[in-house]
Order: sequence, then structure tokens, then C-alpha cells
Amino acid sequence: MNFQSITLNPGSERRLKAGHLWIYSNEIDTRQSPLKQYVAGEQVVVQDARGKALGIAYVNPANLICGRLVSRDIRYPLDRSLLVHRLKVALGLREMHFSAPCYRLVYGESDGLPGLVIDRFFDLFVVQISTAGMEAVRDAIVEALNKVFQPQAILFRNDGKMRAMEGLDSYIEVLQGEVPELAPLEENGVRLVAPVLDGQKTGWFYDHRDNRARMMQLVKGKRVLDLFSYVGGWGAQALAAGASEVVCVDASQTALDVAAENARLNQGEMRFKGLRGDAFDICKALIAEGEKFDLVITDPPAFIQRRKDIRNGERAYSRINNFAMRLLAKEGVLIAGSCSMHLTRDSLVDILRGNTRELDRSGQLFIQGHQGADHPVHPAIPETEYLKACFLRVLPAS
Amino acid sequence: MNFQSITLNPGSERRLKAGHLWIYSNEIDTRQSPLKQYVAGEQVVVQDARGKALGIAYVNPANLICGRLVSRDIRYPLDRSLLVHRLKVALGLREMHFSAPCYRLVYGESDGLPGLVIDRFFDLFVVQISTAGMEAVRDAIVEALNKVFQPQAILFRNDGKMRAMEGLDSYIEVLQGEVPELAPLEENGVRLVAPVLDGQKTGWFYDHRDNRARMMQLVKGKRVLDLFSYVGGWGAQALAAGASEVVCVDASQTALDVAAENARLNQGEMRFKGLRGDAFDICKALIAEGEKFDLVITDPPAFIQRRKDIRNGERAYSRINNFAMRLLAKEGVLIAGSCSMHLTRDSLVDILRGNTRELDRSGQLFIQGHQGADHPVHPAIPETEYLKACFLRVLPAS
Repeated sequence: MNFQSITLNPGSERRLKAGHLWIYSNEIDTRQSPLKQYVAGEQVVVQDARGKALGIAYVNPANLICGRLVSRDIRYPLDRSLLVHRLKVALGLREMHFSAPCYRLVYGESDGLPGLVIDRFFDLFVVQISTAGMEAVRDAIVEALNKVFQPQAILFRNDGKMRAMEGLDSYIEVLQGEVPELAPLEENGVRLVAPVLDGQKTGWFYDHRDNRARMMQLVKGKRVLDLFSYVGGWGAQALAAGASEVVCVDASQTALDVAAENARLNQGEMRFKGLRGDAFDICKALIAEGEKFDLVITDPPAFIQRRKDIRNGERAYSRINNFAMRLLAKEGVLIAGSCSMHLTRDSLVDILRGNTRELDRSGQLFIQGHQGADHPVHPAIPETEYLKACFLRVLPAS
Repeated sequence: MNFQSITLNPGSERRLKAGHLWIYSNEIDTRQSPLKQYVAGEQVVVQDARGKALGIAYVNPANLICGRLVSRDIRYPLDRSLLVHRLKVALGLREMHFSAPCYRLVYGESDGLPGLVIDRFFDLFVVQISTAGMEAVRDAIVEALNKVFQPQAILFRNDGKMRAMEGLDSYIEVLQGEVPELAPLEENGVRLVAPVLDGQKTGWFYDHRDNRARMMQLVKGKRVLDLFSYVGGWGAQALAAGASEVVCVDASQTALDVAAENARLNQGEMRFKGLRGDAFDICKALIAEGEKFDLVITDPPAFIQRRKDIRNGERAYSRINNFAMRLLAKEGVLIAGSCSMHLTRDSLVDILRGNTRELDRSGQLFIQGHQGADHPVHPAIPETEYLKACFLRVLPAS
């Protein structure tokens, strides 16, 4: 290995030593190591101001996060061999938890592979690369997957938003095998399908798996409203668990069509209803019609994308959960989800508290859900934690 | 009802309006309503500075928290009838979740009954009263329990630490029926017993139920260390789930004897070992002997009782989890619990992060557990949330 080195400013090694994997551009000693000498995606040996090696990172000189550590041992750079090792370690965690091979196999930094996400749908592996450093080892990723799993099919969903910032083009490509329009998967023992080729992200959100499992224990014989349903991850599992009726609301007819298919797969087509439109508008209409549900799920897309959106985003969470609460039958249950990393759990709970007071209700927060075990949090990287689900029983004010 | 009123200072109604139930002594307008005119435990109508009634509270003029709201409707004071209603509402939440009638039936403020805890062991109800206001309706509590449940037995474990601050004496009393030394219970489908007459608190800690259920999915064929085991809540359930060996460590031989009984009840007596002594000392000895475990649970008593203990307490959590991590076999799992309300979840995660770095490891936080659904959090009362369980997979530094 003949890697260039990159030198940090004095003290800038602290975050890495504390366990984080990111290097910001203002932490580089640019006299010792001018950023222009590096090519986006190349691997370098990171050293502190005294010249002590800290590990190997890949860099992107154009980016604010200009380096991500891939190895703390300079003998092991990011290559096919390290990828094989990391895939096996990642697999071990998933096999501890899941009987069916349907899960997020690789969750970026938390699995020691910054910039890489792999979702598994039985023998189909959907790969998302978001950084130049990971794109540079694209072929090695395919080789490593073939070595560890011999997949039937590999799909690259390299059309994420972060890629432009890394100077990467956007593409969707079938690397090997055949990829169906709707890929089968299993979650909480329920058979489902996901639109892996043209759905959101990799086609499916495995992150709410545990929260959906908890929801399934509550819905038998109940009427359920699934807001921002996408392809019915919540709704179809509610039907599988015996909900008497499920209404899925989404802005996309394509998503609702897949939700209907997921309902059908679970003998739920007669209990399923899809409503296309803006969730806020549909809530207003349902309230006006006097509709009531035993359980309402609000699982919107991230209302807060950047720190500066926090205030407006919190307002949006408050509005949708106010609507949801007004649609609840007596002693009904609200499941309020948020995938906004910038919304703290405390803030979400406080929003729900505010909603109960606005409507002269009281609430019991009886389950607090997180992202599933296939989305492990890296204890040194708060950015790896984003998902929240608050299960609130809503009562008259007491 | 002929209740005295109590008047708040201007603005001091805000916390109550936001949903909280507590009134601090410095929030009382003592010119309008001198504290010496109230008897500890009496109910009063709370009014804001303009004389608008906010609800009914019971008071204790000697206490910093000198009032707790029991009703927002002044027509309904805390009496037998309200207690019956609150018990039924509380029961509804528990019946949503638990197949066996073994749970915390009433969790104080979160169930609208400040100062009251009731743990249920089938037909035995163990009651803990911690405030003068609740002690004043002691007979009504017994009547309400009899009306809703017709319990076989009622035990008052009125020996909690908070009682002295309320001017209450400490006593344990069987109110009706017969109470066995070891009361049977069921948790996660596992048969167990709890020392309700002389164990800690009510004899059993139901709060970790969900976390133990998650633990059970990980222990088949594994060697498990249960630190601060008390009566083996974790350990016996690990045995029931097929752990190859469980070592329980506790300072109390009595607790370990009950843990052994719980092991026996689950056909685990040959796989169970109890070690009596200080958990820190025993960890040091086990480390010196080169012992390794696949899974280690650290579930200590609250190391942080008061805000001023935070720094020392955090150090204690750090020390015990450092020891635990050193006792882990390769890719082992640490379950780090904390029941200290003053230790934030973020602080606990950061302590574990620090541990991984001290020992040149990395970690994956794959489950974050909370108190169970029978300990609901009141969204306006952060003090009702205290329990944390972090499931960390510990790997070599990567």
C-alpha cells in the first residue's frame, strides 16, 4: 500500500480517538497536507500533529466532511478483504435477530463502512453508495458480496441525494441477476413486497420493524389509520395482525397500489382502503366527517432535513399529531414516528404533550421505540441515530 | 365537598396547565393562602392568581412539592369513586399488553394517582403509598381494589424512603387474605416468585420486563453473567430461554436464595450459580481468573439518587461497565441498565462509548430499552421516566 498521508491540526485527533469516524476539512493541517493534492475517494493514512498514525480514511477534499475513517489499523485498508470481514461481522449481528434473511445488512458507519448501505431481500442485495470513497471500491463491494453470499441479484440504487455533494452521478443499475419490480421480503413473520427499482431509497424501510411488531400486538379487531403509508409497511402488518380495517393515506398512487398488493398478500384486501392525497388535507376531511380510529400512525418523511428547519419541522409534527389525536376513538392509541435526526426524542414527546393539552386530553407514553437492531447506533456517532416511535394512549384530561 | 382553596402566584399555574401535576411551595401565594392553614394530606381546590379553579390537589405544607393535582375537574375529588375509575382506566392499559395478571397496575402520576404504586401478582395486590395525601385515602384504596378486583390478598408495603419526608411512619401490613413469603408471578411467560414481604420495594421489578424479553432472544446456549441480580429477574429468564450457564452476583444471600429458587422453577438449577459479594470485587476476581461470558447484564441499584451524585454515580456506572466489557467473550453482548432518573440516556451511551475506547474496542448499540408499558411515562412529567437498558455488541476496534 502506498497511501499518501494527511495531517491533522493539533487537538483535531480527539474526535477520532473518542470513537467518531469523521474528519472535517478545517481539522486538516493544510500546510503539511494541502487538500488539492488528494483525489476524491482516495485512501490516506491519517496522522495527528505529531505524526502518529491514527488509521486509514478515504477523503473527499471538496467536502465539509472531508475524510471518513475506514480502519484504525494501517495494515488494513478498505479493500475486498476488509469488506469481506466487515460483511461477516455485520451478518453476525443480523443473524442474532432475524430468522428470515431480510434486513439492513450494512448500516454505514455503525458497521464500520461509512458511505455504504446494503438492504437484503432474501437473495437480492440492494446497495446504496453515498460517498466518493465508497464508490472507488465499488467493484470490491460486488466481489465481497459474491464471496460471502453468492447473491442471486445485486442492484445499485445509487440515486441518493448525498451523491451530488460528493461529485457523484446518480444511477440505478442491476449489477447481476434479475431484479423484479416488486421484491419479496419478510418482516415480523409477514410476507410483503417492496418496489426496489423505483421506490423510495432501497424500496423498503426496515428501520421501523420492531415498532411495527409492537403495533401488531395492539390492533386485533381495531380500526387503523396509517398516515404517510408509503407501501403499507405499517398498514399491511396491521392487517396481518387482524385489524378490522386499515386506511392508508399517501400522496403517491404508485405507493398505494403496492400497499394494496401488500394487503392482498395478507388476506386483507377487503379490509384495506387507500386514500391518495396530502395527509394534512385528508385528516381535515376525515375530522369533518366525524371519522374515528382506534389506532393512528403518523410516520411522515423527515420534516426536518437540516438544522435550520427545526422550528418549522416541529410545527409540522405538531400539526399532524394534533390531527391524528382528533381522529382517535376513546382511549385510542397514537403511534407518532419521526425519522428526523434533528428532532430529539424529548422534543417529540413534548410536541405530543402539547397536543394533549391543546385538545384537553391526557396521555400515557407506554412504548418508546427506536430503529431496529439492523440499524445499530454507533455510540460515538450521534448522527447514526434518527428513528423514534412514541406510542401514546390518549385519554380525557384527568 | 367543602374543600379549602389554595391560591397560586401569578404565572405559577403554567406548569399545571402544561400537564404537570406538581405544585412547589414557592408557587403558593402565602398571603392569600398561608400554608399553616392546611393539614398534611388534605384536598384543596387549586386556583390561579385570578381565582380561576384549576382542579383539586392534595397538599403537604411541610414539603417542597407541597401539592399534587389529583383531578382537573373540581366535581371529582380523590375518593373511592375516582379511585375505582382510575383503576379501571389503568387496568385497560395493562390488559392491552399482558396475558397474565402480573404487572404494575398503578404507576403514580402516570396513572393519575400521585403517590400510589400498586404491583399485582395474580390475585395479590401489593400497595405502596408514598405521600400523606394518598395515605389519607388509604381505606378508599382498599375499597376500590375490592370493588374492581375482589383480590385474594392485599399487602401494604408502606416502608418506602419517601414516607419520612411526608411525615409518615413506615410499616408493612397485610390488609386482607394471606400473603406467602414468596409470591408467584409470571413475566414473559416465565414462572417466577418474588419475596413480597421483605424484598426490595414491592418485591419485584416489573420495569425491565421488555428488556428481559429481548435478552431472552439472545441467550440460547450462551454463558450469562447477571450482576446485581437481586432475585434473578434476568438470570432466571435467561435460564428459561436456554442459557447454558447463568452466574448471578448479589450482595444479599437472601436474594440469591430466591434467585436459586427461580432457577429451579425453570429447570435451571444445574446451570445456575450464585456468587455473594460486592459486584465490583467479584468482577475483579472473575477478570483475574480469565473468565469470559457471552452476555453480561449490569443492572445496579440507582447509583445516582440525587442530582448532586451525578458525577460520582457516572463514575460508578463507568467502572462497572468497564469490568463487564472485560468479561465479555468475542463479539459478546453487554446489557447496561440504569434506573437512575438523573442519568440521561445520552450520558449512559457516552459512558459505554468511553468504555469501548478505554479497552480499544468498538461497539454497536443495537437495542435501546425503556421501562415497560405498565410504567407509562407521563409526557408532561419527565420525573416519571427513569429506566434505560442499552444492548451493546462489543467488537475489537475497527
